[in-house]
Amino acid sequence: MKKEELKALLDEMTIEEKVGQTIQLSADFFSDKSEDITGPMNEMAMTEEKKYQVGSVLGVAGANETIELQKSFMEQHRLNIPLLFMADIIHGDHTIFPIPLGLGATWNPELVKETASIAAKEAAAQGLHITFSPMVDLVRDPRWGRVMESTGEDKLLNKRYARAFVEGYQGDDLKQDITKLAACVKHFAGYGAPRGGRDYNSVDLNENTLREHYLPAYQEGIDAGAKLVMTAFNTIDNIPATGNKRLMRDILRKEMGFNGVLISDWGAIGELVPHGVAEDLEQAAKLAMEAGVDIEMMSAAYSEHLVKLVETDSTLKTLLDETVLNILTLKNDLGLFEQPYRGADQAKEEAEIYTEANQQVALKAAEQSLVLLENNGVLPLTKQEKVILTGPMKRSNDLLGAWSWKGDRSKTATLEDVLAAQVPTEQLTIVEEAEIFNGAHSFLVNDVQEADTVIVALGETSEMSGEAASRTNIKLPESQLLLLKELKALNKKVIAVLFNGRPLDLTDVVPLVDGLIEAWFPGTSGAQAVFNLLYGKTSPSGRLSMTFPRSVGQVPIFYNEDSTGRPFTADKGSEKYFSRYIDRANSPLYPFGYGLSYTQFEYSALTLSDTEITNEEAIKLSVTVKNTGERSGTETVQMYARDKAGEVVRPVKELIEFKQVTLESGESQTITFSLSEEQLRYTHSDHTVKSDAGEFLVGIGSNSSLELTHAFRLTK
Amino acid sequence: MKKEELKALLDEMTIEEKVGQTIQLSADFFSDKSEDITGPMNEMAMTEEKKYQVGSVLGVAGANETIELQKSFMEQHRLNIPLLFMADIIHGDHTIFPIPLGLGATWNPELVKETASIAAKEAAAQGLHITFSPMVDLVRDPRWGRVMESTGEDKLLNKRYARAFVEGYQGDDLKQDITKLAACVKHFAGYGAPRGGRDYNSVDLNENTLREHYLPAYQEGIDAGAKLVMTAFNTIDNIPATGNKRLMRDILRKEMGFNGVLISDWGAIGELVPHGVAEDLEQAAKLAMEAGVDIEMMSAAYSEHLVKLVETDSTLKTLLDETVLNILTLKNDLGLFEQPYRGADQAKEEAEIYTEANQQVALKAAEQSLVLLENNGVLPLTKQEKVILTGPMKRSNDLLGAWSWKGDRSKTATLEDVLAAQVPTEQLTIVEEAEIFNGAHSFLVNDVQEADTVIVALGETSEMSGEAASRTNIKLPESQLLLLKELKALNKKVIAVLFNGRPLDLTDVVPLVDGLIEAWFPGTSGAQAVFNLLYGKTSPSGRLSMTFPRSVGQVPIFYNEDSTGRPFTADKGSEKYFSRYIDRANSPLYPFGYGLSYTQFEYSALTLSDTEITNEEAIKLSVTVKNTGERSGTETVQMYARDKAGEVVRPVKELIEFKQVTLESGESQTITFSLSEEQLRYTHSDHTVKSDAGEFLVGIGSNSSLELTHAFRLTK
Repeated sequence: MKKEELKALLDEMTIEEKVGQTIQLSADFFSDKSEDITGPMNEMAMTEEKKYQVGSVLGVAGANETIELQKSFMEQHRLNIPLLFMADIIHGDHTIFPIPLGLGATWNPELVKETASIAAKEAAAQGLHITFSPMVDLVRDPRWGRVMESTGEDKLLNKRYARAFVEGYQGDDLKQDITKLAACVKHFAGYGAPRGGRDYNSVDLNENTLREHYLPAYQEGIDAGAKLVMTAFNTIDNIPATGNKRLMRDILRKEMGFNGVLISDWGAIGELVPHGVAEDLEQAAKLAMEAGVDIEMMSAAYSEHLVKLVETDSTLKTLLDETVLNILTLKNDLGLFEQPYRGADQAKEEAEIYTEANQQVALKAAEQSLVLLENNGVLPLTKQEKVILTGPMKRSNDLLGAWSWKGDRSKTATLEDVLAAQVPTEQLTIVEEAEIFNGAHSFLVNDVQEADTVIVALGETSEMSGEAASRTNIKLPESQLLLLKELKALNKKVIAVLFNGRPLDLTDVVPLVDGLIEAWFPGTSGAQAVFNLLYGKTSPSGRLSMTFPRSVGQVPIFYNEDSTGRPFTADKGSEKYFSRYIDRANSPLYPFGYGLSYTQFEYSALTLSDTEITNEEAIKLSVTVKNTGERSGTETVQMYARDKAGEVVRPVKELIEFKQVTLESGESQTITFSLSEEQLRYTHSDHTVKSDAGEFLVGIGSNSSLELTHAFRLTK
Repeated sequence: MKKEELKALLDEMTIEEKVGQTIQLSADFFSDKSEDITGPMNEMAMTEEKKYQVGSVLGVAGANETIELQKSFMEQHRLNIPLLFMADIIHGDHTIFPIPLGLGATWNPELVKETASIAAKEAAAQGLHITFSPMVDLVRDPRWGRVMESTGEDKLLNKRYARAFVEGYQGDDLKQDITKLAACVKHFAGYGAPRGGRDYNSVDLNENTLREHYLPAYQEGIDAGAKLVMTAFNTIDNIPATGNKRLMRDILRKEMGFNGVLISDWGAIGELVPHGVAEDLEQAAKLAMEAGVDIEMMSAAYSEHLVKLVETDSTLKTLLDETVLNILTLKNDLGLFEQPYRGADQAKEEAEIYTEANQQVALKAAEQSLVLLENNGVLPLTKQEKVILTGPMKRSNDLLGAWSWKGDRSKTATLEDVLAAQVPTEQLTIVEEAEIFNGAHSFLVNDVQEADTVIVALGETSEMSGEAASRTNIKLPESQLLLLKELKALNKKVIAVLFNGRPLDLTDVVPLVDGLIEAWFPGTSGAQAVFNLLYGKTSPSGRLSMTFPRSVGQVPIFYNEDSTGRPFTADKGSEKYFSRYIDRANSPLYPFGYGLSYTQFEYSALTLSDTEITNEEAIKLSVTVKNTGERSGTETVQMYARDKAGEVVRPVKELIEFKQVTLESGESQTITFSLSEEQLRYTHSDHTVKSDAGEFLVGIGSNSSLELTHAFRLTK
């Protein structure tokens, strides 16, 4: 449809039909089970008539189901306006990729784009139009369970991933390419910073911090063309995002230039009442409409009250028209007026979902997401070694992580499956933890005496992270620590593989192991990826995108902290009056950007083409990276800089750029980065983003703990 | 002097003399030790000439010393302008009262005023003019060591204490009453909220939160007439407070109406350089002067650069004149032009410092600061009981806490001193911890078999809290927990007395003890106060002014948290999608306002005179409190309310008023509170403080965990 046609359609619509477009129902409203309908129908203030006026449906999938529902719905809609089908396709559809925090550790946005493209293809074949992804919320507190759904703590990295996800889902031509989904950037804004890491809690953020660190990834997702933005559950400056006019109208729409559909998070308009900024649902509807929320997900404020509100308030009437035009435009952008079933195709659904090729991409993503945290010369294993596999996660197919709706655990190989299939029987013994705890160590006689190495699979269940899964204790479960102590006493090499969804406090773990692999929830092909790493078929290349603290007492902890007036540096020894803890180092256990390889990389000859940058002229920084080890490997070369003086305080260090390079043993390569004025801009107190003349420090190396060894100047 | 005379004096001054007034030197600059002078003299860019132009001195005390220094200084100053003598008199001078967090637990501002008055009297006799107190920083994170210097987490309570301190120090007529000191409200602003509880770290606060919760106590101190305000080390909206023009000019001076002297914290102007908002000290001086910082404490920005800056910048010249007039006005307000030695008086110094009467007030303050956390029927003790005293703090005179400069530990009675003196020898055994850990329990044979009760003195040393003493671990030291476990195994009644400066994680302690007393650092007469409580000479009445978490993983935790959209309440059971932790209760171990008594209080018959409040008409709330126990006791009756809907999110509960009442056994009393529109005001998004019409809930009870049982309405 052309824009004029959309406007003509809008003009034809009754107020009830317009309000209908703002309402999203879950799939069960359209199911046949009448006993189900009674409950939610009432809660959502639905009637059979209103039901066939709504604009979108959540959580229905399957080509047959979506085609059938779209068909019957359009027949009953006076103007035959098609539904939007939306769902949470977060890190894969049927083929499940690593959780976003694992994808974040790949430092490979191109690969993430490929995963999003596959997810879109699988979901589109089932008739889905929109995914509630990417989540680009910056995270600094591992207590928050939903860090698993974020790509990490850094704005640059999050920006790159935001764009990769959006481009992967949406492709180049959303309307024509029916294998694509519309993307929804979420959660606007600042959802990653709940107080105390407790989900849905209020957020305390300086406006300068919000703008400098948190908003850029949303902006990048919008600039990449994301069709939707989702509101956050939390407050910004003490007003819930979903009813926050300044945030949504002034910042999101005007400043950031978003002109797509703004959808509430689940029930978030209704939650304006318990939040205590609306006395009732009617006021909630008014606040959300004034803020510019186009679609209400799973609360009944618009459904119950918007018709009446609009009839008596001409300003709201105008806003509603804008909203409905946004929604109709989205439907048109998806081509639904011409192809209401869009990609839904049962044949494709059978042929193109969970294919071997897709699983291979999942394997590649999982391999690149694994982070080798410790290796005291024990990895990789050789096939000649006799190994024991134990630990509560050894036989677990809970490797998909939260937000893997269509993922099928029963098809997911476990670590035991993979090892049993690929390690000769005589080399492998599976030992139950109970045997180890039996005290008598009865199994010792048979197997362990001859074994060289114990592989112990540990971690969290997928329910221990994700939405509404915040924890005050971020250590491994106590029983797992006890198991490690028992294993340590065996005097074997112990390699721990961790499946989990957040940075853990591993301080007690490190002394008990010889090798330590952070495997996240690695997805469909995760166990094979771990196997490939254990046995050296791949060399580990994952790098943390979120700091691992020494203990929960350090949080929030992140590499790009603000400069303080009393910086504590190594030369201060035990001096007191610096910004430090008296019982712990300020440094984390593992810094942002950290990860070991099976080989070593040596950096040398960092050279700047000039020590002066101007608005017009960038400089080049080059560094030689040499693989000095025995094996080939992939290094993520990271460039960090520091602005020595700003109008506001600046981070002690910021990631400016990174490049991945794969080098054979002995090979060296010169890596060159360009550095321009644009990369030195930051948010000033008047909210403008610009650079200042002045001095900077820069360094290039393998993780954020590097020294900033070189200086340059920006002149204006 | 009259105002015109001050202005005339100002007109007579050279630029160098004006700049001199803005400089503060520490006492050692005027000491005779030439080897000391070389170092600091250079660091402060001092010369002999400039030295005798400065405006104030830090840390000199003693009548002789101050008189002599003032005399020689004025003789060498061309215009004979006297010095200001300042020092950190925080919770007492020679007579040390409980740390402010302990004073906070008294819920007795009148008593706090009395302590401040005594502190002023003692300090004034030594020739001091100004104390860097009160610290009114609101605190929510016990990792921060300086919570010991705050009165707690609540704005109302902090306001009351802010006023009490200022009135106690300054009295009714500062000029005439030479037993008084000028007060300095600190640290403006938001110093109590460093990220991660790490001292001097950046602060993340919404502006609405800053204004609603943090600013009111500073405002109250200013309204009470405090002559000085001190800048904070931290940033506000990412600009260090000390160079933050908006914070100091727009908010502090214009909005809050402060017209006294603004002094930097120690070195804080110089710290604008490491903070990275000034390239060098010259720029730091400019930023601070523009922000309106009148006196520079212990950095050399003004000293080195201000003369030159002012000579080339007429705006700064005008600002300097304002600054110098502020300082001269303060000197005049203290009467120093007429009485340059003011209260300094060697005779008084000998007669009026650390008197028996002062120590009695310290005893009263300590008694009221003690908080009885647990009592399984074991307290109070009777003199007939055989008791064992043990624990690492039993013989410690480290009971004064940080910021007790002139306090003399050697004169401070220990718990052992007091028990040995006041418990019959045959009833008391002192046992070294080493004996308990010896395994053989050799002491059992002799003493413990007959003993009824073990008193174990535990806690932190005073260096473990206070400035620059942030901790990631807020449990008791591991060895103390082991000691408690050993004691538990003895099957005696175990009473733990804790000396410490922050809310601790006592979750592991509670199951190991039968009685638990939070004694803070109780000051000069602290051991006697603990004794009096142990043996029932006093009934405990202290109430926490800061939440005790279940673990560090819960912080920041505070009672008046914001309403969320998904409030977790008891009826939700193990349901997931609420704002909660999955591994811990949301509730703290001990809530704000909590503390046990030796008797019980029953609340009944809460009655509202009306359920409607208007702008003009307040209502009365009355409740009957009955002492249903066997002993007399003091109860702190606390009224909390909740605003059900605001323009911004409002706390789940807020302290609105409180009253202390002492009741004999069986006695009951009706307590009445007035509740007016003014008490329902809060900070709106446009920064105005006002109330809205709407519904409220209210409850009256003994701590912040009470239910809000009654409703009322504010109509406009």
